[in-house]
Amino acid sequence: MLETDLDRTLEAFFTGQRRAAARLISVVENGGPRAEDVLHQLYPRLTGAPRLGITGPPGVGKSTLVDALVRYHRKHDRRVGVVAVDPTSPFTGGAVLGDRVRMGDLTTDPGVFIRSMATRGSLGGLARATKEVVDVLEAFGQQMLIVETVGVGQTEMDVAQATDSVVVVLSPESGDAIQAMKAGLMEVADILVVNKADRPGAGQMVRTLEADLAMRPHSEWSVPVLVTVASKGEGIAELCAAVDEHRVHLEQSGDLADRRRRRAQTEITAVLRDRLWQRAHARLADEIPAWAERVAAGQETPYTAARSLMAAFLEDSE
Amino acid sequence: MLETDLDRTLEAFFTGQRRAAARLISVVENGGPRAEDVLHQLYPRLTGAPRLGITGPPGVGKSTLVDALVRYHRKHDRRVGVVAVDPTSPFTGGAVLGDRVRMGDLTTDPGVFIRSMATRGSLGGLARATKEVVDVLEAFGQQMLIVETVGVGQTEMDVAQATDSVVVVLSPESGDAIQAMKAGLMEVADILVVNKADRPGAGQMVRTLEADLAMRPHSEWSVPVLVTVASKGEGIAELCAAVDEHRVHLEQSGDLADRRRRRAQTEITAVLRDRLWQRAHARLADEIPAWAERVAAGQETPYTAARSLMAAFLEDSE
Repeated sequence: MLETDLDRTLEAFFTGQRRAAARLISVVENGGPRAEDVLHQLYPRLTGAPRLGITGPPGVGKSTLVDALVRYHRKHDRRVGVVAVDPTSPFTGGAVLGDRVRMGDLTTDPGVFIRSMATRGSLGGLARATKEVVDVLEAFGQQMLIVETVGVGQTEMDVAQATDSVVVVLSPESGDAIQAMKAGLMEVADILVVNKADRPGAGQMVRTLEADLAMRPHSEWSVPVLVTVASKGEGIAELCAAVDEHRVHLEQSGDLADRRRRRAQTEITAVLRDRLWQRAHARLADEIPAWAERVAAGQETPYTAARSLMAAFLEDSE
Repeated sequence: MLETDLDRTLEAFFTGQRRAAARLISVVENGGPRAEDVLHQLYPRLTGAPRLGITGPPGVGKSTLVDALVRYHRKHDRRVGVVAVDPTSPFTGGAVLGDRVRMGDLTTDPGVFIRSMATRGSLGGLARATKEVVDVLEAFGQQMLIVETVGVGQTEMDVAQATDSVVVVLSPESGDAIQAMKAGLMEVADILVVNKADRPGAGQMVRTLEADLAMRPHSEWSVPVLVTVASKGEGIAELCAAVDEHRVHLEQSGDLADRRRRRAQTEITAVLRDRLWQRAHARLADEIPAWAERVAAGQETPYTAARSLMAAFLEDSE
């Protein structure tokens, strides 16, 4: 994309053209100076709209729930942005595309913007990439931003990083609650949802989760456990009310500002780390191979080599 | 562990005490200056023993295959080290513990050293951590080193990074071959194995894989497609012969030295990156919060903030 093309795309974006939004998201996803430029221009347009994370084990009905949430907000005439992140390889499932197909009529609703992100190979940068795509959607004027991701590895930390409120979705199936506890999902939950609540075991599961929560140290926000049947739209209004309540709590307690500051800090840190390495690598690229030779020959360890290289970089970094 | 304790552990390690090896592995896994110290002392003891990676989708029988390989090498009186890496959260399977229990009698064989690594939360450092644990096992005198990991995300790149030869294991089940192609597993394979070859579809799968390989650009090593029934020990001798052959190819072509140099380079780079960041963070930690404040308020972007911070660090890094 040429510079003038980018300017034209930004202009179209600011007049609300969807294709321009899609193009800017791609620019942001690709990174580099162009992405920075775009984000720089979008920053003044950020509105502070609520950012909601939806996460949980595979198969609990997250996409169906997101679908129901989107419909709910559309009924209340709010513009919605959805970022669906699939951090898994083909092997571990990831039916994001199929889910998006199911969303059929929503994808043609001009008040809804849905973006799927494939993140294979860039797990480290997931939080940042996700956050920046949400920035674009927020600057585009979407009033409710939803990030959906399967809770695998440490993606639940990434989603918590990129959003204000995190809904952890479980279903009354084989050990979901236990697994969520093991996997650290409970730690990031602002709201817990037992979806597919019309199936056997839902009541028991709610009690298990509440018992687990009751054992925690007291905090200002007490995590509610809600039940939904997303496929029938049941419990969605209650869930949205809880999200609103959490938002009010965040604002009144000062936690919202805290979270956003922390988010900014993490983002600055990530960018700084990358930049610093780019600079060091540009300076040291010619010297590294000789050191690698010595390490491979057992004459140095990676640590002694790194120490010498760092000294060389810092000495002449000015 | 006190300094003198560490010295004593190293001494015990060099006289072949297993408990000392287990302790040093933990030290290495925990990182920090102590880990560096240990690696520094072990480096002169590295023997250059073959390092074999075993990877593939979940459920293809990788652990059973590793089990069979270990038994084979034990029959030939070679000391074996196994590092089983499970990079998945509780949600995506990961029966490593169960597998290790199944290995029952092998775990009491003094010629076998098995170590499971849980890597949740440290995906980025997986290659380095794995490589360093293998270093310890090699310095301990294990003559065949096997790294087993499920091919999820980009772990197959990590295993390729940490080993000399990579065996990709598939089974004649629902679309494994197709998925392997999609997931980039084929790219890292030096040897392909269709395990559970007594099940229907094995022959067809071998043909599909061979057809895919035939379409690739010619290279000096032609990837063989082997069949095994690991649970019955079938095809194991042939697999070991292929691994030996690949080793000979690596040595004669100079690829082994290349791979080991590249590995050293990646390791130096990873250490250097970490160190550099530690140094920068120590210098900038006090300034970052104020910048985060400005970013959260929309006055700066993470990119402009990072630029200013980097300039501050490099100016006074001397």
